[in-house]
Amino acid sequence: MTEAPFDAFRYAHERRTQVAWLSQNTNHLVPPEVVQPALISAIRDRLYEGYPYAPGQPGLKETVLADLGLSPTTATIISAGATEALYMSLRALIRPGDVVLASDPSYLIIHKFIQLAGGTVRELDIYAPPYKLTADRLNEAVTPQTRMILLIDPLNPLGSGYAPDEVRAIADVAKDRRLLLLHDVTYRDFADRHTLACGFYPERTLTAWSVSKNCGLAGLRLGGMVGPDDLIQQALKYNTNDLGVNVLAQVAAAAGLSTKPQWFPAVRAQTRANQDRIREVVEAIPEVHLPVFPSQANMFVIDISATGVSPPDLQKELLLTHGVFVRAGNYLSATYGGRFVRVSFSNPPADIERFAQAFPVALAKLRKAASSARVATAHATP
Amino acid sequence: MTEAPFDAFRYAHERRTQVAWLSQNTNHLVPPEVVQPALISAIRDRLYEGYPYAPGQPGLKETVLADLGLSPTTATIISAGATEALYMSLRALIRPGDVVLASDPSYLIIHKFIQLAGGTVRELDIYAPPYKLTADRLNEAVTPQTRMILLIDPLNPLGSGYAPDEVRAIADVAKDRRLLLLHDVTYRDFADRHTLACGFYPERTLTAWSVSKNCGLAGLRLGGMVGPDDLIQQALKYNTNDLGVNVLAQVAAAAGLSTKPQWFPAVRAQTRANQDRIREVVEAIPEVHLPVFPSQANMFVIDISATGVSPPDLQKELLLTHGVFVRAGNYLSATYGGRFVRVSFSNPPADIERFAQAFPVALAKLRKAASSARVATAHATP
Repeated sequence: MTEAPFDAFRYAHERRTQVAWLSQNTNHLVPPEVVQPALISAIRDRLYEGYPYAPGQPGLKETVLADLGLSPTTATIISAGATEALYMSLRALIRPGDVVLASDPSYLIIHKFIQLAGGTVRELDIYAPPYKLTADRLNEAVTPQTRMILLIDPLNPLGSGYAPDEVRAIADVAKDRRLLLLHDVTYRDFADRHTLACGFYPERTLTAWSVSKNCGLAGLRLGGMVGPDDLIQQALKYNTNDLGVNVLAQVAAAAGLSTKPQWFPAVRAQTRANQDRIREVVEAIPEVHLPVFPSQANMFVIDISATGVSPPDLQKELLLTHGVFVRAGNYLSATYGGRFVRVSFSNPPADIERFAQAFPVALAKLRKAASSARVATAHATP
Repeated sequence: MTEAPFDAFRYAHERRTQVAWLSQNTNHLVPPEVVQPALISAIRDRLYEGYPYAPGQPGLKETVLADLGLSPTTATIISAGATEALYMSLRALIRPGDVVLASDPSYLIIHKFIQLAGGTVRELDIYAPPYKLTADRLNEAVTPQTRMILLIDPLNPLGSGYAPDEVRAIADVAKDRRLLLLHDVTYRDFADRHTLACGFYPERTLTAWSVSKNCGLAGLRLGGMVGPDDLIQQALKYNTNDLGVNVLAQVAAAAGLSTKPQWFPAVRAQTRANQDRIREVVEAIPEVHLPVFPSQANMFVIDISATGVSPPDLQKELLLTHGVFVRAGNYLSATYGGRFVRVSFSNPPADIERFAQAFPVALAKLRKAASSARVATAHATP
């Protein structure tokens, strides 16, 4: 009789308020007054009854573009999460045989969409310093089949960020080699500074944006894509969402984005304090290290490969025994996922403290178990 | 200098509360207490911060299946509107060269998705009695290239419904000819009775469902697909929405579906009274008629072809002069769209009364203008 595999997400959702959610890079630090009054007013006005204005509620595109610092006439897709705009864009622009240069680790849903469109992802290994793509490596990897570079900046899961000259150099590779450049900027607000690649290469750069992380609205699924008009029109041919995006998500996004300069600095400051606290805990444990610090996003990875403990075991132990939900690395890298857990930290300090107490205890327990198992194996008769 | 085309939707959205929305089959008759307390409680609990449970919030699938009267273990997709599940399913199941049998008029977004997957739609003309597909006509139309039958029941835009023996006969055609059957049941709750085709042909029937119309939640975009496990798994390969569906939409859907038997009878009764009132107005006008009455849905079409007035002109006149938003037929039929406007009527009586006052006035004005234009043309020297 086989046991059903443990579904960590179902388990955690069934105990939602008892769990410290450090597993999905969600942002739990946005003050409730930023979006709640707008949402409640929209509900009282029964906005949910009618379809939204299909291209996006009047004013929302302009708010998105102002937030990105782009011209208000830039072509924009508003979709159910950036995910949907990524699907549409890759379906439209990637043909069978096309190769996309990306990284490993990476955000693999984008790789899946490339493959669904018939493309191939060439994953450049970045699990070593500087833990990010470089223009030189991309340049060397280009072949006649290369169609696109995927640049995720800051990078989920490592937290690496790109300096302005690094972004410019990568944009130049794309431009010189006549490639599309897909720039995913979901975590940009958490960075010390951020540079849009479309400023260097507006002709063929697509910028994927989202309000899931900066505005703390992951549950509402709203994001999109901006880019040159011809590429956006091609993507819209594959619109899977002709009737528009959830109207409450649009209301919340407008409320969040238009006030973000007022409250986001406090979110970022807390996020930085939280990662300092996690570093303190991690650095006190032998054989555990942080590949990237400080993270330019609201997450980073903790490498536990030298401990002999498997990331899925650690994820399960932290969740079941301590109510702390982190993510095993296999979700983010087929090659390196066995070496790390990903931890996000845009959470109230109490969640971080729970992690700080639990992590050493859980790891020590699993190391002891792993060590006993090794001893037992060594003593076993063949 | 060319004028930008008139955007009726933008115009109406900018005056949302001043417009009688008879244009999108939306349902404005659901009591606010059905979904508002659940939505507000979810917002207070900050449910929007975290990702939803990706396969659908715990309990929602079971609620959907209970509402449809299907086994709780039936494979189900929850998506951002039925639209997204339709896209995924057609992307997965239609191959270039496949032909889908459908009707004209029809709900053309589905036809678009078939074409995006490389298929062809064979539209059987149903703009004549009985204003719906029949098993005989479908049987005659099947060729070796036929892959699927699309059955929309009740049918948007005509309001035609299918009796149990008609559904069975169409399911038998699909079964005998080894076709897929796609049954869109979005409007089923408005019908006097409704029959699921999957009861006759469970092996290869996909059923598209939505809470947009029955629960009055069009703005939240939630629906999905149920069907045999192998077909649903194929569709999920093309999931454009890996991170799940807006969590507030899921909360509202659960609240609406689980209480629907208590409040929907009053919604249907008002909808029937409203269509009686519209019929009274229409029948008093020469050269105007209702092809289908009573409608089994919350909309029908008004044929104005004998009046010489164009549906887009009538749509614009009703909206700009009277604040009444109906839909010109070109959205629903390339062949017959020039003959009718579609009017939906799940609205408060005041909206219907506004239509009742406006429709004869608007039509008379446009007929007079059309008639003067004809006279002027007749008198013009060559």
